[in-house]
Parts: sequence; C-alpha cells; structure tokens
Amino acid sequence: MSRIRSAQIDEPGGPFRLVERERPEPGPGQVRVTVEACGVCRTDSAFVDGVFPVSFPLVTGHEIAGRIDAVGDGADGWEVGDRVAVGWFGGHCGVCDPCREGDFIHCARLQVPGWAYPGGYSEAVVVPATAPARIPDALTAVEAAPMGCAGVAVFNALRRSSARAGDLVAVLGLGGLGHLGVQFARAMGFEVVAVTRAPESAAAELGAHHHVDASRGDVADRLLGLGGARVVLATAASSDAMTATIDGLRHDGQLVVVGADPEPIRVSPFQLISTSRTVHGHPSGTARDVEETLRFAALSGVRPKTETVGLDDVADAYDRMLAGKARYRMVLTTGR
Amino acid sequence: MSRIRSAQIDEPGGPFRLVERERPEPGPGQVRVTVEACGVCRTDSAFVDGVFPVSFPLVTGHEIAGRIDAVGDGADGWEVGDRVAVGWFGGHCGVCDPCREGDFIHCARLQVPGWAYPGGYSEAVVVPATAPARIPDALTAVEAAPMGCAGVAVFNALRRSSARAGDLVAVLGLGGLGHLGVQFARAMGFEVVAVTRAPESAAAELGAHHHVDASRGDVADRLLGLGGARVVLATAASSDAMTATIDGLRHDGQLVVVGADPEPIRVSPFQLISTSRTVHGHPSGTARDVEETLRFAALSGVRPKTETVGLDDVADAYDRMLAGKARYRMVLTTGR
Amino acid sequence: MSRIRSAQIDEPGGPFRLVERERPEPGPGQVRVTVEACGVCRTDSAFVDGVFPVSFPLVTGHEIAGRIDAVGDGADGWEVGDRVAVGWFGGHCGVCDPCREGDFIHCARLQVPGWAYPGGYSEAVVVPATAPARIPDALTAVEAAPMGCAGVAVFNALRRSSARAGDLVAVLGLGGLGHLGVQFARAMGFEVVAVTRAPESAAAELGAHHHVDASRGDVADRLLGLGGARVVLATAASSDAMTATIDGLRHDGQLVVVGADPEPIRVSPFQLISTSRTVHGHPSGTARDVEETLRFAALSGVRPKTETVGLDDVADAYDRMLAGKARYRMVLTTGR
Amino acid sequence: MSRIRSAQIDEPGGPFRLVERERPEPGPGQVRVTVEACGVCRTDSAFVDGVFPVSFPLVTGHEIAGRIDAVGDGADGWEVGDRVAVGWFGGHCGVCDPCREGDFIHCARLQVPGWAYPGGYSEAVVVPATAPARIPDALTAVEAAPMGCAGVAVFNALRRSSARAGDLVAVLGLGGLGHLGVQFARAMGFEVVAVTRAPESAAAELGAHHHVDASRGDVADRLLGLGGARVVLATAASSDAMTATIDGLRHDGQLVVVGADPEPIRVSPFQLISTSRTVHGHPSGTARDVEETLRFAALSGVRPKTETVGLDDVADAYDRMLAGKARYRMVLTTGR
Repeated sequence: MSRIRSAQIDEPGGPFRLVERERPEPGPGQVRVTVEACGVCRTDSAFVDGVFPVSFPLVTGHEIAGRIDAVGDGADGWEVGDRVAVGWFGGHCGVCDPCREGDFIHCARLQVPGWAYPGGYSEAVVVPATAPARIPDALTAVEAAPMGCAGVAVFNALRRSSARAGDLVAVLGLGGLGHLGVQFARAMGFEVVAVTRAPESAAAELGAHHHVDASRGDVADRLLGLGGARVVLATAASSDAMTATIDGLRHDGQLVVVGADPEPIRVSPFQLISTSRTVHGHPSGTARDVEETLRFAALSGVRPKTETVGLDDVADAYDRMLAGKARYRMVLTTGR
Repeated sequence: MSRIRSAQIDEPGGPFRLVERERPEPGPGQVRVTVEACGVCRTDSAFVDGVFPVSFPLVTGHEIAGRIDAVGDGADGWEVGDRVAVGWFGGHCGVCDPCREGDFIHCARLQVPGWAYPGGYSEAVVVPATAPARIPDALTAVEAAPMGCAGVAVFNALRRSSARAGDLVAVLGLGGLGHLGVQFARAMGFEVVAVTRAPESAAAELGAHHHVDASRGDVADRLLGLGGARVVLATAASSDAMTATIDGLRHDGQLVVVGADPEPIRVSPFQLISTSRTVHGHPSGTARDVEETLRFAALSGVRPKTETVGLDDVADAYDRMLAGKARYRMVLTTGR
Repeated sequence: MSRIRSAQIDEPGGPFRLVERERPEPGPGQVRVTVEACGVCRTDSAFVDGVFPVSFPLVTGHEIAGRIDAVGDGADGWEVGDRVAVGWFGGHCGVCDPCREGDFIHCARLQVPGWAYPGGYSEAVVVPATAPARIPDALTAVEAAPMGCAGVAVFNALRRSSARAGDLVAVLGLGGLGHLGVQFARAMGFEVVAVTRAPESAAAELGAHHHVDASRGDVADRLLGLGGARVVLATAASSDAMTATIDGLRHDGQLVVVGADPEPIRVSPFQLISTSRTVHGHPSGTARDVEETLRFAALSGVRPKTETVGLDDVADAYDRMLAGKARYRMVLTTGR
Repeated sequence: MSRIRSAQIDEPGGPFRLVERERPEPGPGQVRVTVEACGVCRTDSAFVDGVFPVSFPLVTGHEIAGRIDAVGDGADGWEVGDRVAVGWFGGHCGVCDPCREGDFIHCARLQVPGWAYPGGYSEAVVVPATAPARIPDALTAVEAAPMGCAGVAVFNALRRSSARAGDLVAVLGLGGLGHLGVQFARAMGFEVVAVTRAPESAAAELGAHHHVDASRGDVADRLLGLGGARVVLATAASSDAMTATIDGLRHDGQLVVVGADPEPIRVSPFQLISTSRTVHGHPSGTARDVEETLRFAALSGVRPKTETVGLDDVADAYDRMLAGKARYRMVLTTGR
C-alpha cells in the first residue's frame, strides 16, 4: 500500500470526495496509523462547515482506531503492530503553561486530528507519538474508535465528578455520548436516570434504573422526586435542555456539561447559592485518559452500539449522524 | 431590664417602628442573647418587603453580636456572659437528610434569625443553642456582627474554593461582602484583583494587588491579561456583572457566586467545556463556620469597616444601606 | 412482650449469660428497636475482655437490625414499624467541635451500642433517635445487620478513597469486612485484587479479578506487577500485613486502614516521599452513611455471607468468630 | 568564557576538587545556564557518599539559579538572558505512565541535576528545556536558588495539604526546609506552630504564632492543647520525631512528610482509624511548581535566610550544612 484513500472536503459544506494520495511518512516524534475504523462525531460538522477555523481541503475524523505501521525517529514507546486509538486529543505543545502543569487537555495549541492535521476519514494518519492510546485485546477497532471522543468525554466527566457510588446520576441525552454515559454510570455503581426523548425501553436496555421524559416540562421535579441528582451529565447539545435540569439537582449537585452548544445556559444565583449547586464544563481527555477509558470498557463490558459503513459511503454515514438517526454511533470502516 | 425594645415592621415595606415588649425567656435548648450590635444586610430587604415568605409583624436582623444572658434547659455548652455572634445560620432541624449528613447549612428547615424567629434589630434575641458562635477577645461586637453573614459567606467561599496560595483571585464588587472578600483573599495568600466601580485607591487600601474597572466592557480581557482568574468571587448582586467575568477565568477556573440576584447568569457550553470552567453557588455557613471566620479575623487582622447607628435611627441605617452608601457595612448598636 | 432476654457478661472475659429483664422504655429523643438480628464483630471482644473501658455487667453488640416498636417524645422522623439498622455509630453529643462541624463520627463523646448503653445481643434496645438507619425492602434483617459496622466501614472507606472507576484496588483480608470490601469494590467499577490467605476460588466467587497470596513474601511485588494499587483497603487486623503492602502502592496510592491493631505499621519517609504515598485511617460511618451503604447494597446486589445462630447459642457464635471460622459473618437471631 | 570550573567528587565520600573543563554546549531540546548561585542541600550527601546509585566523577548540586546563555535546537520558550532556577526536578522522560498522565514529578526516569547529569556546583550547567523555572525580578539568584528544592518542597506540600486558612499547621524542624515552611505557612494564613529544638525567638522571628520544644516528650500533648494540628509538615529528617507528633493531629489531620529518613515512622491503626488521620509523603515539585513557588515568594515577601560561600570554599559550605550549622541555607556563589 504505497497510496491511501481519504474522504476529503474541498470547501465549507462539502461534499465529501474520495481522493488518493501518497501514503505519508512519519517524521521525528511521529507515528503512522493504519486506520481500521473512525467514528463520525457531531463535532465533525463544525469542521466540515467551517464553523471552526479550518483550512481546506480538509480530511476530518477524530475517533480513530487502527494499528501503528511506522514509527518515526524518537517516537519512543511504540512499535509497529501496536493497536491504538487516537481521539480528540491529537497532541500538545509541551511549552505553554497548561502543558508545563501537566494539564495537556488545556494546551493552548491543542492538536485535534482532522483539524490540526489530516484526520481519520482516511486509510492512514500520521500523528504525534503523544496522541495514541493502547487498545486492549477485548475491544475491536469499531468498538474502540468512539471511545477516543464520545467515550472518554463521558467516562472522564463521570469519574472526575463529585458523584460517588450509590449517588443519583442523570444522563441528559441518549445519543452517541449519552448511550455510553448511561452504561458507564451504571458500571461505576451509580443509580442512573436517563433523561431523554427516547423511550424507556431504550434507556433500560442500556442499564438505566430510571427514565425521565425530556420532552415534558417537569424534568426538574421528576429528578427531585427521585431525591435530586448529585450529577447531571449533559450530553445533549441543548442549553435549554440543560437549563431545565438545574432545579433537579440536590444540594451540592453538579451539572456537568459535555454537549456543545453556543447558546447560553441560564442559571440564577437564587438557584445556586442556598443549594451550593455547580455548573461545570468538562473536555474530553488526553491519550492516557482514552487508554483508561478503553481499559475500563474492557473491565466492565461497556461497549458503544454502532452502525458501520465503508469509507465509500461516508456521505451516508455523515447524513445519518446529522439527522440524529444513528443508533448510536456511526463508524467508518476501511476493510483493513 | 425586664422589657426590651425592637425595631418592628408591621406590613410589607415598613416603616420600622420601635416597640417595647416583655423580654422573652429561653425555652429548652435555647439561649437568650443581649444584642450589642446587629449588621444591616441587603438581604434584610427581602424580608422587609415580603419578597421572602415572612409573617408580619416582623423583627429582622441576622448579623447579631452580643452576650448570652440566659441559658435554657439542655442548652449545653453555653454560659451566661459568653460573647457570641448569631448570623444567617440560626438553627437547623436535625432530622432532614442534609442534617443527618452533618450538612446543616443545607437543612430543609434552616432557621434564619429575623425570618424563623424575631431577629437582631432588637435589644435581645432568643435563639437555638446551635446558633451562636464564640467571639474572640480581639474583636468588638461591632466588628463581629457582620461576620455572621457577610464575613462567613466570603471567607467560607474562598477557603472552600479551588484557589491555592499564590493563585489569582478576583473579587467582584466592593460593598459589604466584597470589602471583606478582598481582605480575606489577601490574608490567605492570593494575588487579589478587585473588580469594582469604586476607585483603585479604595481597592488598594483593602489590600488588592490589582484593580479592574467594572464599569468598562473589558473585564474579562483584563483578567486574562493578568493570567486569568482561578476564582472570581462574585459578591455584587448582579448576574450581568457575573456573566461578564466568565471569559476572564483561566482553565479550571471557578466563578463562585455569593451575591444574590434572581436574574440569570448566561454561560454557554462553549465557554465552559474546553476550559473546564465552573459556575458555583456558595451559601453562608454554620455557627462553626462563623466561629472559624471570627478566629481567622482575629489571627489575620481582617476587620469590617463599619458605620454605626443607634437602634433609634434604624430607618436611616437601612436607607443608607439600600442606597449603597454604606462604607462598607451599617451596624446597629444598642448601647449595651 | 413485657420482658426481654439479653446475653450478658458479668465480668471481663465472660461467660455470656442469658438474663431476663423489664423491657426498657424509650425516653425523650429515643426510640426502642425490637432486635431481629445482630452481627458478631471482632471488636466485641475488646468490650467482652474489658480492653476498652466498659462497665459490667455488659450487653455488647453493635450490628443491630430490627423494627422500631416505640418512639419517645421528640424522636422526630421515626414511626413504629420502621425497619432500621443501628451499627457502631449509636449517637453523638451535638455539642463538641466535631459535632458542630457536622462531623458526627468524630464526636468526642461518640456513643457505641454495647458500650455507651446495652447493645444488640438482646431482644430489644433503646437508642438515640439519631442512631438508626432505614433498611430498604430488598434486604433482610440478617443481611442488614453486618452493614452497620463491617459494611459501612468498607463501603465508606472505598467511596471516600482516591480510587476512581477502573483503578486497581486491593482488599487485604477476606473476613467479615474483607468479603464485603471485595464485593463493594467490584460493584463500584474497580479492578479488584484480593490479598488473602484464602484460596483464589473464594476471592473469585466474591468478584475479585485477581488473587494475591498473603502468606507469601512477595505481596508488594505482585501488586506492582499488576500496575501498583491505587488503594489498598486493609481489613485484616494485622499491622505487619499492612506494612507488607506499602511498596505495592503506585504513586499517589493510599493504604486505607480499617482493621484495628494496636501494633505499629512501619513506613519510612523513603517509601512515601518520591511516590506521594499515603497511609490513612478510616472509621465506620454515621447513621446516614449506614443508610447509604444499605441503599447501595440494595442497588448493586452486594450482600454479606452469614452464618446465623439463635441468641441461646451466643457463646458458640462468639467462639467461632474469634477462631476466624465464620464464613464470613456470624449473626445472632432472636426469632422475632 | 570558553572553560568552566566545577567542584567535582572523584569517589564516594569526596573530597571536593575544583576542576576546569570545556564549557559544554546544549544539544537539541537543551539549554545552558550560567550558574550564579547553587544551594547546598542535605540530600547532596546521598550523592557525595554514593548512597544513591551515582557514577563518579560527580558534580552534585540541584538548587541552581542563574541565566540562560545558550539555547539548543527546539528548546522552545527560552531566550538567552532569561533568569531561571533549576531544582530537584531536572527533566522527565515524557513516555512513562506518570508522564503521560502529566504527573512529571513521578516520572519513572526523573532526571535530577547532579545525579542524571552534572549539577550546579559549577559555573555552568546544561539541562533539558523542561527543567528551568522563571525567576521574578523581585528575587536575587541567591534567594531563588534554595526555592528549587527546599522551597518548592514545603510550599507545594502546604498548598496541596488539606489545611485551609486559619487551620493549625505545625512545622517540624527549623532548618533549610523548615525555616521556609514556617514563613510560607504564615503567608498562607495558617495558625503556625514551630516544633523545634531551636529557641522560641527563632521561630517567632520567622512568623510562627506558637513554639513547641521538640526536645521534650510532650510534643503531641502540646499540639492537642492548641486544638490539634490539621497538618504537621515534617521537614526534620527524623522518623522518630515524626512519630512523636502523630497523636498531636486533630481528627482528619495529616502528617505530611518531606524530610527524608530511611528509618520507619511507627503508627498504629488505633492512632489512625477513629480519628481518620493520615501520614502522607510529598515530593518536591516540577519546574512549573518551582515557578509558582518563586512567584509566591515575590508576592508574599518570603525569602530564604542564607549564608553565601564562593565555589572555592565548597568544602566549608558542605561541612557547615552537614553539621547543621547553616542559618538556614548554605548557597554557593560563582561571582557571575
């Protein structure tokens, strides 16, 4: 394989176009990954549509799983054949204040695959040696891919929240992130509420103990009726839906935001002060966090539910994701 | 003294009227406190105006300092002559879930002096034995009174925030709470920014290292220029002013809300997620917290700046507070 | 039932003697509990043998489960018929500094059933209204009883440790506490190692992922071989066994001590500094903690494995416990 | 200056010998620092005596302050002329698990100047670009040097301890680390106890509120008499002295160990469990931590008290340090 195919966008809005190019070589401190699977994430649309400051032509994709097939000079720690995932975290600068604090996810020059360099809608990617996370044997590439963004975002947010075993944890939204959030929350020993427009059976199948209908106006009351949520993990990209849960938090409760929406959440001091409530944002996680997410998935049996589509059919996969029809995560496969 | 005078409100909106009544006797589990000083807090207006569900006639006042002069049956731990403060926290039920967790400030039936029972605009109050906090010798009654609400709110919020010595801490607002916030923040080893419409000299006098003009539109930029705030302690009761500071928080920064406003703070997921920012409400504190606030004031030299007025002139003191003219806290004195 | 039977000790060392006495009436702020089951805990021997400063005659027992059958004046929150557990935490003074901080378990005058007042080796007990914890329907009295001391100690210690889902957690000892520790750790999403002289099959049956033979000299090396323990939960009452695990902790790892031994753990600064390790003691928990332990057991399916013996055979039960033969917790039953 | 002088040890135990060599050039990712000052630390003796696995000839010294005078390829972030300190943390591998977690101080291949490469008893050093910390203008090189090990160890340990403003913090030992610990603790708003054989006047001069004589047998009782220490910061390299403080910790108190001793601290479960006490080790800190230590020193006025000696007199400085005669930190100067 001296040439590779990629799904490329030439201008904002698309369309996707399969192009062939020379297989890139890893430079110093880089590795090359043969892509076996790549998740299709809602955030990809911010790149495709040029909402984020990208340059075209563009190859997007930041939920990559595959095998290392070449190792650049000084890319210590990796060998050809290593099974790895590369997610939202695609490298850090090492020089800015957050990096010097060891807080790579807040790097001022954070590199995201499909943004800082060509991403995973492709047969191969070249990434910094700090980007990959090892995949345990128990997970296939298709299962591992969504863990690099959707999975690590919810696992990390939950394990770093203030919730402890037995606490009531609500997951708002039951899409690509939410369906993993419910599973992870259950596997961590929380009492889990799914707040969603999806039917109760869907929530129960994923392990939720309770179901609250997000389309009704009484979400906060329902949560209080269950004792009040210690944590609401907000995966739905709707600030209005998030706002509606705040009064359902118990004292010291946290609304943990992982779903991106440019519109404001609205929360008054009166809703926060006497109850010591918190609204908190959580980013995805570093390569090490992805590795721990994958390990926990292997340990606990948590797996994404996916629909797989070949690279040739990328446009269909993308449209299905955008339309909210994926059950629950679209994953591109390359047949490798 | 078999009779006492109190400043009473007979209907929503006032006016204050000095009335004389029998001096009340403490029942089982209660103590009586001769009031020497009582702070005039903005929240008093929510009682006076009937915004909170109070019953009239009403004696408000929840920043009380004085001496215990009678001890009811089973009110263990107190003796006649003990110098004590009674602040916002005026007792707890002991039976609700938060109380059983030891989290008294979130008691479902929290008792606030001047709300649950006659408050400190009076020559004497009867309170539960769980309400008082000991006053160290170093503080006068006038100095101790504002610590029961304004002081404990900012001291508690700061010591429980994520800020550590050397971190940049901004105090928004330089009134009754804020002027204590700046002093406490300085005494805790923070690098302190006052964000206020008051002049730089006022902030510097209280110990602030930096001054940011709150009336200009560049508050967030100014904070980022200083490195980004680890904590913004929002004492100003203005959700708009709070909203304006959020982009001035560094990664992992916290907006800690202690100023009450029914209007919403507006904050988008985009402002929170990639930076892991937090908006958090903080209530005042328990009797023990007030005690620790007073002890820290004695240790560090932090003192409220007060204007004192006799009980006869309560209306003037209240009006001055409402008009924002107090420099910085109005305190009623009884001459006892 | 106007009279009750209790297993009484008349002098240090025993023997147990069944005595009959008037059924006690609850005073103000107290409730009476008909005992259905009472666990036999190793700590009981410190009372029986007079190692702790008790007075004789003595009725020991602090793992009580039963039903409230009488409610004293002011014992708010309880009704006749409520199913409750009363464990090590049998009441607090409300006046000391820890109590005023809401930190009841560190009460300077902590009341332990069977020490501060007649305990659960009896057909009925009278306890302060702050002592009971509600039992969920899913648990029988025999299942609930050991949760008041053994259960809450390990559940509380684990949920308050620094371990997060997926972390390697070792449980040292597989007795009354340890067999619950392994189950709880598994249900919280930890990767669980049982460090015990018991066979691997016993550990696996309780849910441990790994087994390390505590009788060999390579415990620390074995733990490091698994990646190093984030937490070692030390339930075995052996300071030497605890000492042997310290070098098996990863950086930032914690040895959490719940097993009581008067002998010293030995740990050098060299073992602690460069790795930031911690040795930490954890007490049992309050009534609310017991309630949360019971709720988590109901949620997760964790149950003690018990051998039950009637009150008449208390001496046998006690001897079996002392000899380390119980699999895993002896529980006295009264037939009520 | 094409040649530099260094104080070299040729075999375990010394003596120091001044040698001249070519001035080394920084390689890729390295910078060269002209040494202006270098602290003499007790840990140096572990290198000099070959207790740690070092190779000879050896140039020790890990409390370096000076100026960058050459920048290697890719050593981003530094310019010639930058004033920097390089302390115990002299570089990390970037590949091991702790490094990937951003936890550089626990790097499996941590590089310490004077161990991993020639150290600061010299006129120039070459270090990885990740090692230096910026020195604020307010501090001289002599003042900055001890902050890279002694200073950061105590500042970091205190700010990451559980102590909050107003809490009782004891500093055990009043030497190179302890005299900074007392100053930092005071500047952070703690109530400070010096536990030392030094006279009360020495402790008071550094800002301690209380003095406890470490040579008497009642250290723990004295601490309890002051309310019990929330934190004991153990800077004295004596495990016996540390052991003697444990019963002086309040509930939830921490013994934080920064003084190195190969002998064991002895602490029984009985001393830990009912009080929830903790014994915790703390390493020094990363380059970023050193930078924050220096910034806090500039902000708060904390300064090391030093005796300075020229490089020619290194043997005298070392002997004085070993004999415990330094008041309080020996610093070598090069006249540059």
